[in-house]
Amino acid sequence: MKKDFLYEGKAKILYQTEQPDRVVAYFKDDATGFDGTKRGKIVDKGVVNASVSAALFKTLEGHGIATHFIERISDRELLFEKLDIILVEVIVRNVAAGSICKRLGLERGQKFEPPLVEFFYKNDELHDPLIRDDHVLLLGLATKNEIEHLKKQALKVNHVLCEVFDKVGITLVDFKLEFGRTKDGTVLLGDEICPDTCRLWDKESGKVLDKDRFRFDMGEVESAYQEVLQRIGVLG
Amino acid sequence: MKKDFLYEGKAKILYQTEQPDRVVAYFKDDATGFDGTKRGKIVDKGVVNASVSAALFKTLEGHGIATHFIERISDRELLFEKLDIILVEVIVRNVAAGSICKRLGLERGQKFEPPLVEFFYKNDELHDPLIRDDHVLLLGLATKNEIEHLKKQALKVNHVLCEVFDKVGITLVDFKLEFGRTKDGTVLLGDEICPDTCRLWDKESGKVLDKDRFRFDMGEVESAYQEVLQRIGVLG
Repeated sequence: MKKDFLYEGKAKILYQTEQPDRVVAYFKDDATGFDGTKRGKIVDKGVVNASVSAALFKTLEGHGIATHFIERISDRELLFEKLDIILVEVIVRNVAAGSICKRLGLERGQKFEPPLVEFFYKNDELHDPLIRDDHVLLLGLATKNEIEHLKKQALKVNHVLCEVFDKVGITLVDFKLEFGRTKDGTVLLGDEICPDTCRLWDKESGKVLDKDRFRFDMGEVESAYQEVLQRIGVLG
Repeated sequence: MKKDFLYEGKAKILYQTEQPDRVVAYFKDDATGFDGTKRGKIVDKGVVNASVSAALFKTLEGHGIATHFIERISDRELLFEKLDIILVEVIVRNVAAGSICKRLGLERGQKFEPPLVEFFYKNDELHDPLIRDDHVLLLGLATKNEIEHLKKQALKVNHVLCEVFDKVGITLVDFKLEFGRTKDGTVLLGDEICPDTCRLWDKESGKVLDKDRFRFDMGEVESAYQEVLQRIGVLG
């Protein structure tokens, strides 16, 4: 199924398939944190993230949210529609955690009602700065209609995922989404949705079940990823 | 006219007058740059900034833009309506200069058409971070209606000031506005508008005529401020 190497990112490698509009994403165990300054490996992270992403993309499709997911083709490989990625990282926050606490002087754990949607410019050199809608237009990253679509879809995704995680005793604290355009300009949800891209806290104990365990050397990194997979697997 | 000391800021001291809804702003020569880390004095800056601010507030009022300006009462003192300041710094940019170039990887001198409006959280401890409209709501800094009002007024102010400066051979590169609420909740343009809060470039030579001369030790600081005063004085 894989054919030509396309691109290697921090957590995935993309390959072109024989069909021009389809790519294979290979999920690696490589982990990075703090803008790429911390690097390491999480054993079997690729397997967990491919599985969790596949399960969540399926659920979202079932709720009418168009994603790039086609099918899982091996334990670490997902078949995706090929996208021209929109260089806007869309963050949805239900609870204050991570960078926003320091940036705006908020207490970790403060609830956001309604959920907060933020845009960041996906640009490694500039360290992914926060941007306003007008910056998106200025930089030509997306159109006005696309901006509104991203916000609407991000909140829909949040609504569905909150329910999914709630059912398995997990608080969906925040997460990052990326979107992209197909050849005909349709905007689809892209990238991955997994413990690398979400903050997930056990509802009862508050235990962190996501990449923050790696970022902050909290230990039990692999078992936290497996825990998320097992709980989400209950849905499958 | 002055009565009780109210507040000392980086560039002004505010005094309560005998009328509860009126304050006197005394314009100092103290100059700061780079988030308060650079400090100094610019001789007679206070006189220039009081004069220029008075002239520009009058012009804006003449164009139907409600400001806190009442009258000039001495060379360094303006009488203002008392405002409860909205903690949002509104930046309008016609040309790329200063922080935005590094932040978004833009060339100094790039024109913004339409002009760009940005919001920053006025908070010294947090170093005035860029914020999105949803952060303004989250932090309770302003209502949705007020946010729309700030944007609309900022662009109106820009339109008037571009004309004013254009007539005297100056490019209005960017500027900062602050707004506040009177006791009855009316939102007025506040603070000051002067070479401390605007980037001003001579149209022909490109010579910098604003606080960047102080920030970057470019010399001829006092004469640049006097130059702006003289050119604006032509209008009066």
